[in-house]
Amino acid sequence: KAGLEQYILYKKYSHKSCNKTQFGLMSDLTFLGQESEDGKIFFVKIHAPWEVLITYAEVLNIKVPIKENDIPSMKVMHPEPDYFTAPFSKDKQELYLINDESTFFSPSMRNRIVNYILTRCPYGTEEGKKKFGIKRLLNNGTYTAAYPLHDYWKKASDPNCDSERYTLYMELGPFLALLQRAAFGPYQIGIYFAWLGFYTEMLFLAAVVGLICFLILYNVFLPSKEICDPAIGGEIIMCPLCDRECEYWRLNTTCESSQYSHLRQEQQQLQLRPEYEAKCTQKKKNPVTQVMNMLTEVSFQISLIPQVSLIIASMIAVIVYRLAVYAAFASLMENTQTLQPISGLLTPQLATSVTASCLNFIIIMILNFFYERIAIWITDMDPQNSYEYENRLTMKMFLFQFVNYYSSCLLCAFFKGKFVGLPRCLHIHCDPAGCLIELTTQLTIVWLANRSGEYPRGYCSKYPENLYSRWEQDHDLQTFGALGLFYEYLEMVIQFGFITLFVASFPLAPLLALMNNILEIRVDSWKLTTQYRRPVAAKAHSIGVWQEILNGMAILSVVTNAFIVAFTSDMIPRLVYYYAYSENEDSPMSGYINSSLSVFLISDFPERNEPKENPENFVICRYRDYRYPPDHERKYFHTMQFWHILAAKLAFIIIMEHVVFIVKFFVAWMIPDVPADVKAKIKREKYLTQKILHEYELEK
Amino acid sequence: KAGLEQYILYKKYSHKSCNKTQFGLMSDLTFLGQESEDGKIFFVKIHAPWEVLITYAEVLNIKVPIKENDIPSMKVMHPEPDYFTAPFSKDKQELYLINDESTFFSPSMRNRIVNYILTRCPYGTEEGKKKFGIKRLLNNGTYTAAYPLHDYWKKASDPNCDSERYTLYMELGPFLALLQRAAFGPYQIGIYFAWLGFYTEMLFLAAVVGLICFLILYNVFLPSKEICDPAIGGEIIMCPLCDRECEYWRLNTTCESSQYSHLRQEQQQLQLRPEYEAKCTQKKKNPVTQVMNMLTEVSFQISLIPQVSLIIASMIAVIVYRLAVYAAFASLMENTQTLQPISGLLTPQLATSVTASCLNFIIIMILNFFYERIAIWITDMDPQNSYEYENRLTMKMFLFQFVNYYSSCLLCAFFKGKFVGLPRCLHIHCDPAGCLIELTTQLTIVWLANRSGEYPRGYCSKYPENLYSRWEQDHDLQTFGALGLFYEYLEMVIQFGFITLFVASFPLAPLLALMNNILEIRVDSWKLTTQYRRPVAAKAHSIGVWQEILNGMAILSVVTNAFIVAFTSDMIPRLVYYYAYSENEDSPMSGYINSSLSVFLISDFPERNEPKENPENFVICRYRDYRYPPDHERKYFHTMQFWHILAAKLAFIIIMEHVVFIVKFFVAWMIPDVPADVKAKIKREKYLTQKILHEYELEK
Repeated sequence: KAGLEQYILYKKYSHKSCNKTQFGLMSDLTFLGQESEDGKIFFVKIHAPWEVLITYAEVLNIKVPIKENDIPSMKVMHPEPDYFTAPFSKDKQELYLINDESTFFSPSMRNRIVNYILTRCPYGTEEGKKKFGIKRLLNNGTYTAAYPLHDYWKKASDPNCDSERYTLYMELGPFLALLQRAAFGPYQIGIYFAWLGFYTEMLFLAAVVGLICFLILYNVFLPSKEICDPAIGGEIIMCPLCDRECEYWRLNTTCESSQYSHLRQEQQQLQLRPEYEAKCTQKKKNPVTQVMNMLTEVSFQISLIPQVSLIIASMIAVIVYRLAVYAAFASLMENTQTLQPISGLLTPQLATSVTASCLNFIIIMILNFFYERIAIWITDMDPQNSYEYENRLTMKMFLFQFVNYYSSCLLCAFFKGKFVGLPRCLHIHCDPAGCLIELTTQLTIVWLANRSGEYPRGYCSKYPENLYSRWEQDHDLQTFGALGLFYEYLEMVIQFGFITLFVASFPLAPLLALMNNILEIRVDSWKLTTQYRRPVAAKAHSIGVWQEILNGMAILSVVTNAFIVAFTSDMIPRLVYYYAYSENEDSPMSGYINSSLSVFLISDFPERNEPKENPENFVICRYRDYRYPPDHERKYFHTMQFWHILAAKLAFIIIMEHVVFIVKFFVAWMIPDVPADVKAKIKREKYLTQKILHEYELEK
Repeated sequence: KAGLEQYILYKKYSHKSCNKTQFGLMSDLTFLGQESEDGKIFFVKIHAPWEVLITYAEVLNIKVPIKENDIPSMKVMHPEPDYFTAPFSKDKQELYLINDESTFFSPSMRNRIVNYILTRCPYGTEEGKKKFGIKRLLNNGTYTAAYPLHDYWKKASDPNCDSERYTLYMELGPFLALLQRAAFGPYQIGIYFAWLGFYTEMLFLAAVVGLICFLILYNVFLPSKEICDPAIGGEIIMCPLCDRECEYWRLNTTCESSQYSHLRQEQQQLQLRPEYEAKCTQKKKNPVTQVMNMLTEVSFQISLIPQVSLIIASMIAVIVYRLAVYAAFASLMENTQTLQPISGLLTPQLATSVTASCLNFIIIMILNFFYERIAIWITDMDPQNSYEYENRLTMKMFLFQFVNYYSSCLLCAFFKGKFVGLPRCLHIHCDPAGCLIELTTQLTIVWLANRSGEYPRGYCSKYPENLYSRWEQDHDLQTFGALGLFYEYLEMVIQFGFITLFVASFPLAPLLALMNNILEIRVDSWKLTTQYRRPVAAKAHSIGVWQEILNGMAILSVVTNAFIVAFTSDMIPRLVYYYAYSENEDSPMSGYINSSLSVFLISDFPERNEPKENPENFVICRYRDYRYPPDHERKYFHTMQFWHILAAKLAFIIIMEHVVFIVKFFVAWMIPDVPADVKAKIKREKYLTQKILHEYELEK
């Protein structure tokens, strides 16, 4: 019988009968004790009768139906009338549509009310102080758990009477409907699913566009013929990529990996430029201190608040640590001899980046464990702000995870090989085929590894057979912790970050995210309906601080993508070559590869950098940059073409950012936050409520 | 006697006694008729007794004191206790702090209540339909005006009993206090003054910084010795600035105007570059169509909504019209002969820009008149959105005024002389001393002219002597229209636009704005307390859509200032010269002027562009650009220095924008929207109210 079992306390060790006296003022709640089948556990069922419900519905300002919705709208789940609502008031009961007292308040309202009473009811006095609240009773072991009951499970014979729980479990896709409903009577979990569904629907478009981009890249532009052509790429001798140990190599050896990345191959490839060696040793630790400088400047801006400084400090520490590990590992990997064991399975370039990425992922996982503790610890330190606890914790956890997951990718996309002359010293450089392929590998591995840990989680406990009572079934389920929803959001937001921040280098990301999310929705609803105890209903109006985080990430992604296109891809150098330097009218791009490589005279190598062996007695080698050849009067200085390309790149960034932000601004301005029909509905509800109350007031 | 005269209706032509029956249900209001002294006007005074007040206070959810504020805070005006408030409820009167029924509701609450009753009270039936509302009675002439009464005027003998009106009139600066109070019981006008006061306080800092910048520019950097030196500037022969009519001129003739602008002289000065003449004629109408193209692209983005297209279309029409008038006028002015009459008073350069700016201002004023009508007309066209009428009208009026006031300045700052080779054709070019001085002139004139129209307004009516009754005094005052506050905001926001968007070219703007605003606050409070009838109190929570507009303008100003510094000033070319091209180690900037001028061979002029006379038989002339001289193999092509400077400019824009926005983001994140103490106060109020109500509810 519905309506009775609303809230369950249970205690393990004692058979003492539980009575009302323990809960001083709650004289109106109905208590009912019952032993479990094996007699080890004593359950206390709590039921709130009508009188209690209406008193607290007024205190909690619960909104109840006042009039049937007369604006036609989409139906929600199985046909069920939609109502205009007004806050409940005990004195005006005749105003509301009360057909049946046992179903007037929904189960979530009822468990909210009971939870409200339990959390603030006095149960005794101690040294003159009143003691109150179920939380203390749980902490001191009087009870071992308190939870609301799930709806009954299994399909009803009457199709109109399916339990909501069963419907939620079976049905896919009432998300938009939920979203609309969320505007009226929103609960946290409903909002999460509505948001997730909306996000997934939006991913369809992005996935299609991404897939098309990927296919075009792979088929149309991809055969980078000049690189793979033995007559062109095979004849170009490239300078070695590291000191002494490395060898001269031919350009067409990177043919394979440039199959994917050639259109956006990184242009300032790692090269040995001995004439800068002196500067280089002076700045030995620069990339790290640069990062530190930058960040300490930022932290100066906000150092007013020690708490924030602490966060920033931890993040810097992590970045430094990660850079160090990464650099050490890279230098280990760089020597091709150490790669022999795995080179049979993969190309050497891939092997390096795959193993590096795997290591990276392991570090991420370990750090995540500590981050969580640090974030909670920092947030706990500041008790006066406890009312915003969750939002603050969210922001901190997100910042940590953001740095953790993205730092290596950002490093890869923007720093590696970008500081001419410097990277050589710290061994931070990219794969010979370009940073792009490394970035892609890293993204894929971090992401897949992250996902793979997700699915099996929770599958261990099977949903119990329908043999014993519902409260005992629920007792055997896991607790849905206070941070349960937080982790779900975090996971999705990190995913959102991967697909927006790096989409220019990894156009398949939205498609992968789409497939993941379709699965994710099912897994989440399965977990919530069968694996966890029913959570206490909590009101929410929006996705909270996540909204701001997503917004900030979207803005950041415009910047990162502009920089990826301008600096990590070679789109701009190609366009400049096409419009300004091409001399062959029939195939304007021919000769581009040659023009993008500068000449280095091998005899200019200082002793300690020169490769050990030069079996074929090369005289010159080539490197990716635009500098004058050794026989020019301004030997090894940047050419005019370099400055043209640099100006074009910077202009591209400025134009792209401004255009995208202006369009974003206009679109945001044209699309209202609340759709017109929902607005109309809210207005009408307000108007009706006011009218009804006003008339009622005057007639009284 | 306070408390009686709360609301006044008056009718002119009739001596008929006014009675309650005209207002059907309002049987509780007290009516009192009275003739004016000359017997021509019949006044009806309305008083709401206690019973009426409490009924409607509940309907209107008016917040009343429930407990004295126990959080210490700044005192507001004369010492007056501050209270926690709760919505009034008729049934719980004993909860509130009702000391004296005649003063419990403040005058603004009482006039709000009476206004609420009057606007929706039925006064008769016609053809079965109920007729209601004072507005209809006003429209059909039954009454000629309805307004609340001002507080009594003059200083009371007891200093604690000053009327609020007198205090507001006399006291300057309780703005921060008002701002805090605004968080609790906010009314539109209070919020306006609070905002204005806050804005003015913030201007202090900007004004100081601006003044310092101006003084530094004027004294330290200013003597642009090389330009004024007859041995350097006097020896440089500049190319003529227009076809045929103009003459060759010496650089030191601009010495005077470069006194102000030299540090940021526009670098790509108007020059005759005959080799581009052919292109030039082909693109004869380009600057205009470019503007059009740009804007039609934008309007395509949002063409979904015809209303917006209409606005954009009007704006484009205005821009085109303005450009045309401006171009025609400029070509008229350009011939130095037409300037003879005024050249005695001003330097020729200044004369041109002053007259142009004055003409510009007249056009602005005329267009403003039409804009207002168009904006109201467009907004009226869309009746379904009438509930957001004011916000929509605000946005539209603002867009129009924005385009109107700023288009010529933006044109001057960014388009004039920027399209190399093109400006010559449309006669859109800057003063020889640089665009900056022209921009400054224009800003000053538009602004001063705009302000000068402001002050005398309203001074015509003297505040009446204290000889006749208060309602008759109030009757003689002006009506504070529905859009009254709107114009006050608009004026301030346009001013904000001038000082933020163009501050880089006119650092004195904040100081002028500061002086203006100190006056403005006094004038506004004087107008409201003595020149206008008391407006009906209207609730407001914020400055509404102006918040968004100010925010958008602040973001836009970062972009405009970055571009002004990069392109309109010559800071970047100077820095590039200093670091990369200077050869003189003792005074690194010497030779800069010479290096910034390119050489043009006069014999390269095509026939129709060559100046008529060349009395001194010059062979070469100079122009401001970085191009190879005529004897170079790449004659008249851009030099390497040009590309260095371009890259530096673009990099400067990118760095400046990103740094400013990151800092802005962090500052916005660190400074909460609501200060901690106000937040605490709100929380405490909420908590106390809930606690009191809860206890009251349970004990009932």
